[in-house]
Amino acid sequence: VRYELYYWPGIQGRGEFVRLAFEEAGADYVDVARTEGGMDAMMRFLRGQEEGVPPFAPPFVRRDDVVVAQTAAILRWLAPELGLVPQDEARRASADQLQLTVADLAAEGHDVHHPIASSLYYEDQKTEALRRAKAFTGERIPKFFGYFERVLEKSGGEYVFGDRVSYVDLSLFQIVSGLAYAFPNATARVKAPRLRELHQRVKERPRVAAYLASERRLRESTDDLLRHYPELDPA
Amino acid sequence: VRYELYYWPGIQGRGEFVRLAFEEAGADYVDVARTEGGMDAMMRFLRGQEEGVPPFAPPFVRRDDVVVAQTAAILRWLAPELGLVPQDEARRASADQLQLTVADLAAEGHDVHHPIASSLYYEDQKTEALRRAKAFTGERIPKFFGYFERVLEKSGGEYVFGDRVSYVDLSLFQIVSGLAYAFPNATARVKAPRLRELHQRVKERPRVAAYLASERRLRESTDDLLRHYPELDPA
Repeated sequence: VRYELYYWPGIQGRGEFVRLAFEEAGADYVDVARTEGGMDAMMRFLRGQEEGVPPFAPPFVRRDDVVVAQTAAILRWLAPELGLVPQDEARRASADQLQLTVADLAAEGHDVHHPIASSLYYEDQKTEALRRAKAFTGERIPKFFGYFERVLEKSGGEYVFGDRVSYVDLSLFQIVSGLAYAFPNATARVKAPRLRELHQRVKERPRVAAYLASERRLRESTDDLLRHYPELDPA
Repeated sequence: VRYELYYWPGIQGRGEFVRLAFEEAGADYVDVARTEGGMDAMMRFLRGQEEGVPPFAPPFVRRDDVVVAQTAAILRWLAPELGLVPQDEARRASADQLQLTVADLAAEGHDVHHPIASSLYYEDQKTEALRRAKAFTGERIPKFFGYFERVLEKSGGEYVFGDRVSYVDLSLFQIVSGLAYAFPNATARVKAPRLRELHQRVKERPRVAAYLASERRLRESTDDLLRHYPELDPA
């Protein structure tokens, strides 16, 4: 099977949760907008010029003749064949639940730098961003991290679902990395030993480590989903 | 099978997407926090005092000994047994994708009245809310409605997946209802004939109609996920 990933070239963004799953699984995938098809191929789907249910936004994945958008839906769909989720339906639903909670944290983190509208520049909503950053770093990161600590405590194993890695673990790695880049001071203040251990454990998995060291892993930037603006993360 | 729904009593909120699915399916369910168990039963799960992966927030559903949170994960998990999604995995993934797009619209609509922090009162973020409302009503509602129009156009049937109703149709009904309550002027300005027809069609389904006329259907209010503040929806 060959997978086609469609996502904005140049940023990790939400596409990174899907890239990490493909990389850890050693899947045969192509990052279309960054390589062969370019942006044109992606835009055809977004304009509804291709068959099937159109995507509202990237990322989306094509496998054979099926196209699915929305990060959590993509992962729920592909994780069984990638071997990145337990077999039983109950734990698959739990994985979906946890992925959606990671997605909520990512969306809240994005809205720190864009609290008014995605269509406006950061500079045009900086006053509001300063206010929102205070609440996000002071209340929300601690609340989410505390929650994931409890989840890991209950798992009893090295990963969320025990001893085998799942896409949820990869996504937790990614959100911790993203927040540590965007809000290094605030993130460092949160006590979350299990989450940090998990982050390190995922980072050292051979395929993940090889991916992170490769040119396929894009650098964080102030074009990304999570952004580092020093004024939003005071010491 | 008896389902237990846990959600904040007194509002439709995200729980309503799950309630509509149970109602349309004629399922045997209890709305725990509003009836037998009260808030205490719900809080035990939120504090992690029950078995399994804890919920980050309501809604969550218990069926037998399995508990799943996050609206879209609940629906993806239960829709097959409720008969509210097609059989094949590809269309189940599409349903998940569409539900998540409805969820994004709902979350953006919520953040109109709480653009800075959920922990602050609306009155303490009203200046920012006025600015965000302008972008949401002017850009986002039209963009999402236009997208759902295209999805319905491609379906070719009465519902998103042809001639049989799915949970996505129920959710589209709910989001259109919620936005028409919260932003009546802005919503009326958006041309979306197929979406409005679908809204009406779902509303007239016997079980949905009976539910909407019952006391189980809570009224909209300014405590809800989507709220009507006249200043955020000028004529």
